[in-house]
Amino acid sequence: MATYASPLQNDVLSAALMELTGILGERATTALAEREHHGNGESHHPAALPDIVCFPRSTEEVSRIVKVSAKYGLPIVPFGAGTSVEGQVNAIHGGITIDFREMNKVLRISMEDLDATVEAGVTRLQVGRALKNSGLTFFIDPGADATIGGMASTRASGTTAVRYGTMRENVLGLTVVLPDGQIVKTGSRARKSSAGYDLTHLFIGSEGTLGVITEIVLKLHILPEAVSAAVCAFPTVNSAVQTAIEVIQRGVNVARIEFLDDKQMAAINAYSRTEFPVLPTLFFEFHGMNERDVSDQAEVVQELAQDNGGLGFQWKKAQEERDVLWRARHDAYYSSLLLRPGAKMWTTDACVPISRLADCINETKEDLSGVSFPATIVGHVGDGNFHVLCVLDPENAAEFAEVEEFSARLVHRAQAMEGTCTGEHGIGSGKMKYMLNEHGAGLEVMRAIKSAFDPENRMNPGKMITPL
Amino acid sequence: MATYASPLQNDVLSAALMELTGILGERATTALAEREHHGNGESHHPAALPDIVCFPRSTEEVSRIVKVSAKYGLPIVPFGAGTSVEGQVNAIHGGITIDFREMNKVLRISMEDLDATVEAGVTRLQVGRALKNSGLTFFIDPGADATIGGMASTRASGTTAVRYGTMRENVLGLTVVLPDGQIVKTGSRARKSSAGYDLTHLFIGSEGTLGVITEIVLKLHILPEAVSAAVCAFPTVNSAVQTAIEVIQRGVNVARIEFLDDKQMAAINAYSRTEFPVLPTLFFEFHGMNERDVSDQAEVVQELAQDNGGLGFQWKKAQEERDVLWRARHDAYYSSLLLRPGAKMWTTDACVPISRLADCINETKEDLSGVSFPATIVGHVGDGNFHVLCVLDPENAAEFAEVEEFSARLVHRAQAMEGTCTGEHGIGSGKMKYMLNEHGAGLEVMRAIKSAFDPENRMNPGKMITPL
Repeated sequence: MATYASPLQNDVLSAALMELTGILGERATTALAEREHHGNGESHHPAALPDIVCFPRSTEEVSRIVKVSAKYGLPIVPFGAGTSVEGQVNAIHGGITIDFREMNKVLRISMEDLDATVEAGVTRLQVGRALKNSGLTFFIDPGADATIGGMASTRASGTTAVRYGTMRENVLGLTVVLPDGQIVKTGSRARKSSAGYDLTHLFIGSEGTLGVITEIVLKLHILPEAVSAAVCAFPTVNSAVQTAIEVIQRGVNVARIEFLDDKQMAAINAYSRTEFPVLPTLFFEFHGMNERDVSDQAEVVQELAQDNGGLGFQWKKAQEERDVLWRARHDAYYSSLLLRPGAKMWTTDACVPISRLADCINETKEDLSGVSFPATIVGHVGDGNFHVLCVLDPENAAEFAEVEEFSARLVHRAQAMEGTCTGEHGIGSGKMKYMLNEHGAGLEVMRAIKSAFDPENRMNPGKMITPL
Repeated sequence: MATYASPLQNDVLSAALMELTGILGERATTALAEREHHGNGESHHPAALPDIVCFPRSTEEVSRIVKVSAKYGLPIVPFGAGTSVEGQVNAIHGGITIDFREMNKVLRISMEDLDATVEAGVTRLQVGRALKNSGLTFFIDPGADATIGGMASTRASGTTAVRYGTMRENVLGLTVVLPDGQIVKTGSRARKSSAGYDLTHLFIGSEGTLGVITEIVLKLHILPEAVSAAVCAFPTVNSAVQTAIEVIQRGVNVARIEFLDDKQMAAINAYSRTEFPVLPTLFFEFHGMNERDVSDQAEVVQELAQDNGGLGFQWKKAQEERDVLWRARHDAYYSSLLLRPGAKMWTTDACVPISRLADCINETKEDLSGVSFPATIVGHVGDGNFHVLCVLDPENAAEFAEVEEFSARLVHRAQAMEGTCTGEHGIGSGKMKYMLNEHGAGLEVMRAIKSAFDPENRMNPGKMITPL
């Protein structure tokens, strides 16, 4: 595990620590175990330890921590569940990591307004538990049990974005601590507003580089009265993707359409002792206001799948059957990881217009035929987003160099197709090098915003954007 | 008609005009008729004429105009269809108005990606015509035939936002000319991205104060296979709003729920020779993938309406019946205007959490019982947004003062209910005074953004935000 040396002087740190301890007591720590725990997320990036880790319990405490950071010129790195994959939480310039695990309260739920206010350290599964028996739900499901603050910060999504949107569409407002410690509330609880600049969306996806998100007003959704699922194998990537396109064109408001490639299906079969055909496959989920509604959706999808050469469309109506299916999808990551014992995962995140998705996947599979590591593909196909799960030997530096080059080719392929280098994982330190090609002159605009908010570059420095 | 004196010197204007004429020929003009035409939108604000009006045909030409504005320090005011109601297009500091009527091309439509790229001067009805027979549509319907550029700039919406969202949810990317003339593309054609700051959403709703939007990538929607409508009167505002809340809570993904108060229904009856009950009324529209789907929705709504005391739920299945209904809704504005011959309309735009909507409307009706002008209420009730249409005598200054005070009370009522002063009309010059109460410290953040983009305050000055 590599650790960057902190460039900070000991006397500065000592003075800052004394102030932080005055505010937080033992909830400000320099213990090596805590610094190491906070030095990396679930990514392939080298760890980088903060100098101090803080565990605030309120927005007011976060504000006071940030004021100490301003006074001593220390970086601030927000830390949720540590599940980000592009190095977002690594303290590459040292400083203060703010861990939100003690800001984990669901503050308010409104059954009438279908919204809730949560602290940044609440996780998505915790939101689900808080909503149990309410008839409401929060659908956004990145693979890990990420915090809502982290999900907002990276503009996260998951398998349900095709129907319910990403964090971009599911946040009404935020409480944010600015780089000078000032507390700002963005948005309102109204469903829409035309009153001024959209600060909410500016902070969503800003990865802690403009300020620290401490509370989030979430849109909630009604739990569907009826749910059904289906699975279908296809002879080719093209026929699977074409089916997805036609499903959407037919106006089926499908809740999930997940693509898994032949290699991923083989890995699942090995891991879960299932017997799915080892072919490009689509998993579907349908939500509706009654059984007839979801049946109608499934029938249209079945017809389109068969017209596109689908092999053995299977409709999974029973809860247990659906659970098997989505458990298999959920286990895609782990099943791929087990393709090599002791392996480390490197996950790509290209997203393209759906009309280019089959091309992008096919060219990527062709590219993969020449690499030395195993890889599987899963995709949120309704959004044009897919991940290549590259299964690497952590001891083999040559493989990391190889995957870095593969990843760069994939990013440029997606960008050339009017897509993006990241659909839902964010930039962190890992994808900064792709920002110029993706945004052109827009990158200078982003730098100007960063400079306006954080001229000292204290907020998660070295991530996403460098100031002017 | 009041006109502000332009503070600009004649020699500066002459030099700028000469350069603009060199770029645009006769499409740069100082003709009084053009200046007068561009001095106001459809608002109650006093007209203010630009010094020069330009009609560019390309983003490149817009860039060259803005470079001239930078060279001579002249304000830039973007002008679409001139249908804004908060003074957004009034050239209150003179300068150059950019009229987009010659940038009116639909550049690209993708049937597979459900998106289109349009120039800023394309109107919403023109988008509809371009999509005829495609099976696709663009649903956002402000009352007027606004331009897409104007709708993006004010974060507009309409009757379908409850299902299909506002401009905030329906734009994938923009081409923008920055204050220095630089051209920037924001977003991508991917459905989602986590790559950097969300510049698209920063420009949506910025009313030309950060830059000039010249092209828009729009999300399109599938035309529903089946459409149905319904109308139901209610004994009270509360019972109507409660029905709307329960419809949404039951998971009916209703396409439109429009509220009209008793006075509005009376005005419609007088205008359209209809015989609707003169009571608080809801108009519904249902979209589905087949007739059964919309029947299911209508049946649930009928049951909920009846449980809430609804009087005579009428289901409008036939196209002609639906047309009568929505024509009546569409005519709400005109029917109210005719309550007084030669009247001028002042429209409010409060939006609150739906749980507070009945309170907000009832308190507003109580307030209206004490004013001297007639007024009707229409509301996009699924979003918590409603308009009071205040019908004023344009010669009576006392009425304008009275409505200004009424409007201020309504805004503060909505803001106190965690709502907003404007759901869809924007700030312009008319609502700047409410920004501080709505945003608190957030207003300083907006000012910092304005200063970072436009330190000379040339971009639509005097609207929405003043720089630091």
